[in-house]
Amino acid sequence: MTYSAPLADMRFALREVAGLAEIAALPGYENATDDMVDAVLEEAAKLAGGALAPLNKQGDVQGARLENGVVRTPDGFPDLYKQMVEGGWNSLPFDPAFGGQGMPWLLATAVQEMWQSANMGFALVLLLNQGAIDAIEHHGSEAQKQAYLPKMVSGEWTGTMNLTEPQSGSDLGTLRCKAVKNGDHYLISGQKIYISYGDHDMAENIVHLVLARTPDAPAGVRGISLFIVPKVLINADGGPGKRNDVRVASIEHKLGQHASPTCVMVFGDNGGAVGYLVGEEGRGLSYMFTMMNNARLNVGVQGLSIAERAYQQALAFARNRVQSKDDTKASNDGVPIIRHADVRRMLMTMKATIEAMRALGYYGAAATDLALRHPDAEQRKRAQFRLDLLIPIIKAWFTDAGGEVTSLGVQIHGGMGFIEETGAAQHQRDARILPIYEGTNGIQARDLVARKIARDGGETLRALIADMRSLGDALAKAPGDDLQAIRDGLLSAAAALDDATNWVAANVAKEIGATLAGSAHYLRLCGLALGAYVLAKGALTASQKLMSRDGDPTFLESKIVTARFFTDTLLPQGTALVAPMKASGRTVFALSEEQF
Amino acid sequence: MTYSAPLADMRFALREVAGLAEIAALPGYENATDDMVDAVLEEAAKLAGGALAPLNKQGDVQGARLENGVVRTPDGFPDLYKQMVEGGWNSLPFDPAFGGQGMPWLLATAVQEMWQSANMGFALVLLLNQGAIDAIEHHGSEAQKQAYLPKMVSGEWTGTMNLTEPQSGSDLGTLRCKAVKNGDHYLISGQKIYISYGDHDMAENIVHLVLARTPDAPAGVRGISLFIVPKVLINADGGPGKRNDVRVASIEHKLGQHASPTCVMVFGDNGGAVGYLVGEEGRGLSYMFTMMNNARLNVGVQGLSIAERAYQQALAFARNRVQSKDDTKASNDGVPIIRHADVRRMLMTMKATIEAMRALGYYGAAATDLALRHPDAEQRKRAQFRLDLLIPIIKAWFTDAGGEVTSLGVQIHGGMGFIEETGAAQHQRDARILPIYEGTNGIQARDLVARKIARDGGETLRALIADMRSLGDALAKAPGDDLQAIRDGLLSAAAALDDATNWVAANVAKEIGATLAGSAHYLRLCGLALGAYVLAKGALTASQKLMSRDGDPTFLESKIVTARFFTDTLLPQGTALVAPMKASGRTVFALSEEQF
Repeated sequence: MTYSAPLADMRFALREVAGLAEIAALPGYENATDDMVDAVLEEAAKLAGGALAPLNKQGDVQGARLENGVVRTPDGFPDLYKQMVEGGWNSLPFDPAFGGQGMPWLLATAVQEMWQSANMGFALVLLLNQGAIDAIEHHGSEAQKQAYLPKMVSGEWTGTMNLTEPQSGSDLGTLRCKAVKNGDHYLISGQKIYISYGDHDMAENIVHLVLARTPDAPAGVRGISLFIVPKVLINADGGPGKRNDVRVASIEHKLGQHASPTCVMVFGDNGGAVGYLVGEEGRGLSYMFTMMNNARLNVGVQGLSIAERAYQQALAFARNRVQSKDDTKASNDGVPIIRHADVRRMLMTMKATIEAMRALGYYGAAATDLALRHPDAEQRKRAQFRLDLLIPIIKAWFTDAGGEVTSLGVQIHGGMGFIEETGAAQHQRDARILPIYEGTNGIQARDLVARKIARDGGETLRALIADMRSLGDALAKAPGDDLQAIRDGLLSAAAALDDATNWVAANVAKEIGATLAGSAHYLRLCGLALGAYVLAKGALTASQKLMSRDGDPTFLESKIVTARFFTDTLLPQGTALVAPMKASGRTVFALSEEQF
Repeated sequence: MTYSAPLADMRFALREVAGLAEIAALPGYENATDDMVDAVLEEAAKLAGGALAPLNKQGDVQGARLENGVVRTPDGFPDLYKQMVEGGWNSLPFDPAFGGQGMPWLLATAVQEMWQSANMGFALVLLLNQGAIDAIEHHGSEAQKQAYLPKMVSGEWTGTMNLTEPQSGSDLGTLRCKAVKNGDHYLISGQKIYISYGDHDMAENIVHLVLARTPDAPAGVRGISLFIVPKVLINADGGPGKRNDVRVASIEHKLGQHASPTCVMVFGDNGGAVGYLVGEEGRGLSYMFTMMNNARLNVGVQGLSIAERAYQQALAFARNRVQSKDDTKASNDGVPIIRHADVRRMLMTMKATIEAMRALGYYGAAATDLALRHPDAEQRKRAQFRLDLLIPIIKAWFTDAGGEVTSLGVQIHGGMGFIEETGAAQHQRDARILPIYEGTNGIQARDLVARKIARDGGETLRALIADMRSLGDALAKAPGDDLQAIRDGLLSAAAALDDATNWVAANVAKEIGATLAGSAHYLRLCGLALGAYVLAKGALTASQKLMSRDGDPTFLESKIVTARFFTDTLLPQGTALVAPMKASGRTVFALSEEQF
């Protein structure tokens, strides 16, 4: 049950699909030389496979524990975390002004994929810290940045997101945590739930970002403000001060991600936790939204990562497990089950889905960099719109696929898949939270149709459809049956997506119920169609490289076959969703609540 | 987290789809009067909801334990089991000659659905016993029947199936357990794994059915014989004798079904376990096959059952959890999440899938009765062929759907779905074994194309397609848009199934690899198309009953809406699989093993 980073496909997706060369040439990314990028990928791969992965199962079995009011992470986690801080891994994409390395988000995303594949229960803390840094960097005062960012960027301190309350899950407008002004700070009181890494024993301090309501604030989302609430207060000299009035009440007993402590946090039991307002009062939720793209992209990447981990384990099993004869041969001798058609179909489904996710995820990460760094304002804006559109698709399609692929991983193991010691089941359990947290996939589908398509009438998506058709033109000139079959699939996906997008754009304002009823189908179509696009792009490049004898032909040929498998057998399950999308409004609301 | 048997839909599926009246009129089912059937359903519903369901979660949390070589089931299980034996629930479908009640398998299937919904970890022992009874009834000697069946039919003793060994999972031809003749019995030795309820504390004796190999037997499946190996030997007077040489070595730590002990069994550590040959030497596997239809139908029903349980829990949550405004209304007040479009889509998907499975499962169970009891030999044969064809579809499609529906159940709960205390996750964990045991779903797909379609060139399936088209003709005369939309869907499914079946029949002999590569797609198409057929049949009946004011209009209208939801939004995901099925052979085998 080891993990070996799929560097060949990562490099291919980075360079040939996401355009790493173009990204690395953006102003501010001068450090991202070819040599440096390669070194980062190789060192990260070593650390992921050699240090994170071996603790993954142990972390699941032992789990995080609450002992005397303090969370203890599984054995080995504190040392591993220290190693990551010392290696500078936390600081990869951040501003050198705060100790960051100023590398592209594109590269950081590939590295993140490795951490999450190797040990998702551990690596969740890295994601959360990244989000907290992002929030403070964008909305904190200069003094706050100076006080918190250097230690958070290095990873000596970690960050959390304190949003959810028992009555406030998807609907944050109803939250009740209180913040009362008290001189230069606020006193925070209330309960938060589902706080990942709300406490742990791996860092000196934990910086909680807390959404709370000031006394005279209006009801709903406009009354919510964002506060920094450090676990340990900071003295005037920057050193550690006294313990803040915040504690862990309990940790949850969950289906998966056992290593990651999910805490119930209580603020202000003894008079109020000291909190510092970020930005202005009443703007807390909008600040949270600005960091959501990053967080949702990363959760999408978790879907990709856990799928890759499950694939590697299932593949090793399928190569070793001998059972039954080869149906296509005369001999009655048992063969490794990878030779059986249905096992191979499952492996191909896993592989093709993973490679589509990787290419599309990196393509999305590249849009992050373009939106941040492109010298041309119009290009930045266009990239931002593209990123905004891709985010719900990446978050929801990847995490649904994470569930499907990890389930296939269990299935390939047969009876052994159901036995916990095998480890295949852990991946499916760990993956199950991904379609839920950071905005459920239903909320992503809503975001896609009601915001991202509604706000420009589908224009941004139509630009992607135009890219798909241009690629179709280029494929028309490419040699061989496979590329023509890929082209046919791509063009039918473009047509389906065009039709569906026009329908959504036309209906979202006037028939919001019916549009939302079909929104999950629309999102899945988008995922499969864009997955086909990035795989087709890779297949065309692979074909060109094969012709010019540039690169490993075994790998390049596999990119063409995998793309064709995807367009032939998975993509039609997406294009078939146009009719269900349009029809859903008719029946989804047709029963009374009593008829269920 | 209670369970309430869905009696209205069960009765509808029994009477209007599966033809209970016709089944009850078969010779031998004289006891199955309308009153008796109703009484059985109502009493079973009370027991399932009142006694089995309350122990479901407790069983998961506590699990089965191995203590001093003996398996202890969770608290309450032995008393519950005793109650079921005393109520005569074990004996429902069996021969009155052995204490059975001689009721139709159709009715027993509906009752089984309730047990499995209420507490699958517990109720698995009932299924296994049924299978063991079936095997002895069909293949045991008269003396064996007299010795074992009365106590097994009553449930005082339970049965097991000892098939799997570490090197022999799907491929039983490689099993190694030994059976050496020793006077009137054999001495059995070897290890068996994954033996559900291989030991427990609920019955006086356990009757193991064991596959083993005699010393000079040929290699492969023809060398395998079937033996009865009781845990406690039976004295000449029929009373309990000495303990046989069989023990539990360990029990597995599994993803789900914690209440059900999955045992490693060791036979013959002290010289050999006493075993009695069933039938003839070398025919063990063929005897096992004759009872497989029953076992696989029941595992399919488990998929339906766990889906129903998950649906009931998710529905209760969706009615109670208030979160966010209604998108279609002006008010900003939070509403129960059942009013949100995507939650409702998920609930409709669950409901429609469950009702399709129920109707198709009962339709299959009715074929069991017709094959056993129809006075006309030709009709019996036709029913047997139909049953044989339906079995892999019911087993695989239902159990895949069980995984999908229980996952939707978790999703509807949002963050709470991931917390074990909520109970939604247990259903998904429990459901995960169903696509694996009793023949993996890949093996079901193989059985469907390589045996069931191959053996008659698709003729039996074409008779079902003809039934679908006849129903289409009848629907053409029915009133209203919904029934016409259902008809359109049904006819397109018939066309897709026809096309796909012709392809399978034409290719299965000459292109076995390509046919198997597409077999999972074909099976799923069959499941969705036949699901649409039985729902459409129900919708037409509901429409007729509405017109004649016969029955509860609220329920009858829901049958029409649900059928339309299924044909509009789920069925197209099946008809879309024809092209992937045909295309799979091209790419599934196109990569070398090193290219994965």
